[in-house]
Amino acid sequence: MNSDLDLKDFIRDIPDFPKPGILFRDITPLLRAPQAFRAVIDRLADRYRDSRLNCILAAEALGFIFAAPLALELGFSFIPNRKPGKLPFDTQAFHYELEYGTDSLEMHIDAISKGDRVLLLDDLLATGGTMQACIRLAEGSDAEVVSCAHVIELDDLGGRAKLAPYECFSLIHY
Amino acid sequence: MNSDLDLKDFIRDIPDFPKPGILFRDITPLLRAPQAFRAVIDRLADRYRDSRLNCILAAEALGFIFAAPLALELGFSFIPNRKPGKLPFDTQAFHYELEYGTDSLEMHIDAISKGDRVLLLDDLLATGGTMQACIRLAEGSDAEVVSCAHVIELDDLGGRAKLAPYECFSLIHY
Repeated sequence: MNSDLDLKDFIRDIPDFPKPGILFRDITPLLRAPQAFRAVIDRLADRYRDSRLNCILAAEALGFIFAAPLALELGFSFIPNRKPGKLPFDTQAFHYELEYGTDSLEMHIDAISKGDRVLLLDDLLATGGTMQACIRLAEGSDAEVVSCAHVIELDDLGGRAKLAPYECFSLIHY
Repeated sequence: MNSDLDLKDFIRDIPDFPKPGILFRDITPLLRAPQAFRAVIDRLADRYRDSRLNCILAAEALGFIFAAPLALELGFSFIPNRKPGKLPFDTQAFHYELEYGTDSLEMHIDAISKGDRVLLLDDLLATGGTMQACIRLAEGSDAEVVSCAHVIELDDLGGRAKLAPYECFSLIHY
């Protein structure tokens, strides 16, 4: 059954990607295996079904892969955050630091509303920059951030500390 | 019920995006409305449930939003095609022409196999460049392309003709 599945069996380690010394955790084998992909969504749904959430917010592109099915499973709104220039309506932007340079995420100004209870979901928690950007965008709309969830968390990179005071949950830890 | 829902009620028209003279069809209101998003997935699932498919292939980023839930709904493998440099394993690439300049998509070389029966899915069929790239990548793996499906098709742009001889299906036409 799904509950016995070890999700790590469906993650492929790729050494030296995107650069030497980095061990990349590749989720594409998990996406190829319907029972493993289903287990991810079921386990996230079980955790958040009774949280009185009404929105799931995710950043492109891999976050969409998990957030869209989870939103459908739970009957919640799905809110996509995108790279600059992709969203067609009026947006708010949040700029954030990367190891080299900066990046930005945008959200439609009417995407979420005061009083919305929002789950932020991403495929991976590394240093936390993308999730921090999603938090700031949600806060900027006076939504209530309920939790930050990830499929994979790289524990040694300390991203979790940057998400405080919000709850942080991950299905798979390395 | 879902079957009565007019999906166009959930598409927002944005004039002059991404440039003057273009009327952009914005799907974010549909993603905010769980019953409309569910109707999209249900209608696509109804069409393809008995097609003996086993894979759904989609290009980032908006294609992921529909392909991931549809793959889960039907119990198929989900294969993400990505922009250059994003996929960590060995890839094959396809370069294609845009109105200004060129773009590329990459797929893992082991993503699909000879004999796989593949549905290609994207949010929008405009001039057909992205879907053509997905077709070439699937063909390069000796997979059988069964159909090209879209949530929205812009009929006047002629993209459908470029996808021949493959079946082309779209839920919403403008």
